[in-house]
Amino acid sequence: MDYDQECDVLVVGSGAAAFSAAITAKEKGASVIMLEKGSIAGGTTMRSGGGFWTPNNRFQKQMGIIDSKKDATQYMARLSYPQLYNPDDPLLGLTQNDFDLIDTYYDEAQQAVKFLEDCGAIKTINEINWTGKPQVDYMDHLPENKGIRGRCLYTQNKEGKLSYGGELIKQLRSWATSNNIPILTKHEVKHILRNAQGEIIGLEVLKDGQDTLNFRAHKAVVFGSGGYTHNTKYMLHFQRGPHFGGCSAPTNTGDFIKMGGEIGAKLGNMAGAWRAQLILENAIKHPEGVHNIFYVPGDSVLEVNKHGKRIMDEKRNYSDRAMTHFVWDPQYAEWTNMLVFMIFDQRTATLWQGFAPYPVQGTEAEHIITGDNYEELAKNISSRLKKLAPHTGGFSLSPKFLENLRETIDRFNRFAVSGKDEDFGRGNFNYDREWTTFPPTISGADWPPKDSPNYTMYPLSEKGPYFAVILGAGTLDTNGGPVINKYAQVLNNFDKPIPGLYGAGNCIASPTANAYWGGGSTIGPALTYGHIAGLNAVAEPVKQA
Amino acid sequence: MDYDQECDVLVVGSGAAAFSAAITAKEKGASVIMLEKGSIAGGTTMRSGGGFWTPNNRFQKQMGIIDSKKDATQYMARLSYPQLYNPDDPLLGLTQNDFDLIDTYYDEAQQAVKFLEDCGAIKTINEINWTGKPQVDYMDHLPENKGIRGRCLYTQNKEGKLSYGGELIKQLRSWATSNNIPILTKHEVKHILRNAQGEIIGLEVLKDGQDTLNFRAHKAVVFGSGGYTHNTKYMLHFQRGPHFGGCSAPTNTGDFIKMGGEIGAKLGNMAGAWRAQLILENAIKHPEGVHNIFYVPGDSVLEVNKHGKRIMDEKRNYSDRAMTHFVWDPQYAEWTNMLVFMIFDQRTATLWQGFAPYPVQGTEAEHIITGDNYEELAKNISSRLKKLAPHTGGFSLSPKFLENLRETIDRFNRFAVSGKDEDFGRGNFNYDREWTTFPPTISGADWPPKDSPNYTMYPLSEKGPYFAVILGAGTLDTNGGPVINKYAQVLNNFDKPIPGLYGAGNCIASPTANAYWGGGSTIGPALTYGHIAGLNAVAEPVKQA
Repeated sequence: MDYDQECDVLVVGSGAAAFSAAITAKEKGASVIMLEKGSIAGGTTMRSGGGFWTPNNRFQKQMGIIDSKKDATQYMARLSYPQLYNPDDPLLGLTQNDFDLIDTYYDEAQQAVKFLEDCGAIKTINEINWTGKPQVDYMDHLPENKGIRGRCLYTQNKEGKLSYGGELIKQLRSWATSNNIPILTKHEVKHILRNAQGEIIGLEVLKDGQDTLNFRAHKAVVFGSGGYTHNTKYMLHFQRGPHFGGCSAPTNTGDFIKMGGEIGAKLGNMAGAWRAQLILENAIKHPEGVHNIFYVPGDSVLEVNKHGKRIMDEKRNYSDRAMTHFVWDPQYAEWTNMLVFMIFDQRTATLWQGFAPYPVQGTEAEHIITGDNYEELAKNISSRLKKLAPHTGGFSLSPKFLENLRETIDRFNRFAVSGKDEDFGRGNFNYDREWTTFPPTISGADWPPKDSPNYTMYPLSEKGPYFAVILGAGTLDTNGGPVINKYAQVLNNFDKPIPGLYGAGNCIASPTANAYWGGGSTIGPALTYGHIAGLNAVAEPVKQA
Repeated sequence: MDYDQECDVLVVGSGAAAFSAAITAKEKGASVIMLEKGSIAGGTTMRSGGGFWTPNNRFQKQMGIIDSKKDATQYMARLSYPQLYNPDDPLLGLTQNDFDLIDTYYDEAQQAVKFLEDCGAIKTINEINWTGKPQVDYMDHLPENKGIRGRCLYTQNKEGKLSYGGELIKQLRSWATSNNIPILTKHEVKHILRNAQGEIIGLEVLKDGQDTLNFRAHKAVVFGSGGYTHNTKYMLHFQRGPHFGGCSAPTNTGDFIKMGGEIGAKLGNMAGAWRAQLILENAIKHPEGVHNIFYVPGDSVLEVNKHGKRIMDEKRNYSDRAMTHFVWDPQYAEWTNMLVFMIFDQRTATLWQGFAPYPVQGTEAEHIITGDNYEELAKNISSRLKKLAPHTGGFSLSPKFLENLRETIDRFNRFAVSGKDEDFGRGNFNYDREWTTFPPTISGADWPPKDSPNYTMYPLSEKGPYFAVILGAGTLDTNGGPVINKYAQVLNNFDKPIPGLYGAGNCIASPTANAYWGGGSTIGPALTYGHIAGLNAVAEPVKQA
């Protein structure tokens, strides 16, 4: 076969996982080419908060925070595999490979970050939250967590400030470009090429949607591409319940599942995802946009289901919050919480304006449903649902919605006054108070209110208008796909590594399973296993074509 | 390559799907060999109720029951895809392939049964339930169902009586044997063999766990094997929540996922299963046994979760009931309903004795937890859970369990007196009254009680002892795997049929998705797509080896 281009290591994708693999391989002496399906580099990382969850990092050490291997791995194992977790078992109750991926993560995450810092690819910074403390994890209150803080790192920009995904990509891309790693956009990988021995030797690529090119990798191919959020058939056939989109790069259609499947890669964690609730109507109208509701901002705000009942602590993290949508009703054969309704008042909409889903006051926002009172609000939610019926299987409010909504709000208001959420413990957790509840977006607001014993809740105004937004489950991206081992090697269906094939990021079966350990739980493993893939790819023997 | 045996059509497995394919192919003139991994033929069908859900069957026609294509397909589509269902869409809101599988099912199910009857393989009979009516579906009350009865058929034995899975297998096997179809047990298929063009030409088989044999199929291979219930890693990596086993043949470890994956078959419906609650402790002790609780027998019986609260109408069907176990708690990162507790009194245990989970009175049954009163019962459940901790991630009762249990039982007792279950509508549905509630197992019992306005519920005795059984989610079997089209051809990852490869039964992505349409929803599609596979396999051209 003639090859259009050759190098030691081919890297697919251009998000955190892909850059980490490419930079590591390059720094270790390999020639590297990156292949990106989209028209710009950056993948889903570009759209993200850009944090990377890094246990036992140097900032923690500087601050005297002890983040031992035992504590960190117990937290990870417990959160990822609650039904298996067993602190008395050497593997903590997990399978060998699932355990190895977590065990290795603790050791290598900080090393991966250090490597990228040392070679000058990124500058990092830790997060101090608005209350002045190092940031907490998403399940900081679990006994296994030990309340350990400061695991989430970010990129530091030129001004020394904490920055998001755009800056992370900017720094990584800048290093790659300065070090002569070609980043070929609009290069869609179509097939994985193998030699007669079944070793991976390159990729078939469609350039600009028209030219088929063959790329030769002398040593290895690393997939650091995306999940399958934008493949509606895969979402239907693999996920645990109905989703309505997600904020991943629109090019994330599960290509590695298809191509890996073609050559016998074993799939894992296929019902897994990084999840969030999203604004249903906007996701239907603009599937490629970012409509995730990462936080439920403010205090006089709650969520109810079709029966008008609360189903969770609304200050929980986005990923676990979205999991509450997958409740099956065996009486009527429907997903009870498939759509939920975020309810808030004028004061909250004003104070936190501009923070989604609240529009800047005075601007139009079609996703907001309004009512002068609860009765009108319920009626208007109902009509809106009727319009959306072709997209939702005709999902509708139950006859008791209004009656229950009134009771629910009375009850919520009483909790807000007492400071104690007797149903879901809203505000009991550091995460609730320090991460998803934060001061108003408008300046000069007198907040928290002096009469609030628990500033995560405040009674809704006695007078309307009231507002509602329809939320459905969505993803940041899925995180199931071909299974890797602790060397980031992709395994075949008989648990043997496929020679020359590596994976990291959202395209593979995540070491996290279905858990979101803390801020940066997506990019942390992406950087880490990308780094491990890069190291091992360089050490591979040259394969015969 | 030398082949140890040759035929036109190789069939893998020996349950309903496999026999249907084998008998069809043989009757149409092909030479056929069946390969069974286990030491006896019959697969999961052998362990089953043996019904086959057959819309518009001849018994319905005889009884004047009109079961139109429109009504039946709308019911199937609505139940299988509630989030997509759209009656105004030509595909009812489904994808083309998912729709085709349902559409074809309506037409072919009755034909498949007729074919097997006409060739003398089986004799069939319809079910008249204990109330004297043709049997109802599992969601008979959905508007799309139109209350249509009589879709579930069974095998008729020599005495003209309705019979179960054992008899179905006996009849099928008898025909196969009489017609010279070898049924080779202890023949475990290990790999699918292909020629240079990628066409399927045979199977590599391990005989008696030691000899590797190559079987040549001139025309086609049909997989009619099982799901992956007994592969704990697959259960963990594909299912929507924690399961603790299932009643499928112990050999059902997802072999077709592995082998199909090896040759590039596309996977689908991977989070799907036929489900049931099962007796946790027995499933842990004897994973290969049948511990499913298909019905919650009796009237003074209910189920509560770790908070002591009811979560469903306990008279719903086993598959949907098990779905209630997958509720995620975003506050404490655990599966709230992972284990639930079936609570009942002495009267119920006596009246329905011998029907699982109630032991025959006087016999020992370790899975029964006893308490003289509710306090003692709660205490004893708690201690039992402590012992089980290594198997359950330390699942435990919440501190409010006893208080809530008392309230829950008071409330249930009030519902039983009024006849109206205000929370879940128990007894509102024909299915509840005619299928899962039935007269006592002991003769001469005066039942239903005259003071019961709704015989699905009766107040628990004011005096103990009381009893509990710990239930977890399990399967009859999973039903995800390689995707087929309406011709039962297995598709590759690019949606093209793999030449010469067919599939049916629990080993493939089920046409039902995650729904259980009615009695026989497992074996109906198995027989039907097995039959379709058999017909098309015979018509295949001979492949070059």
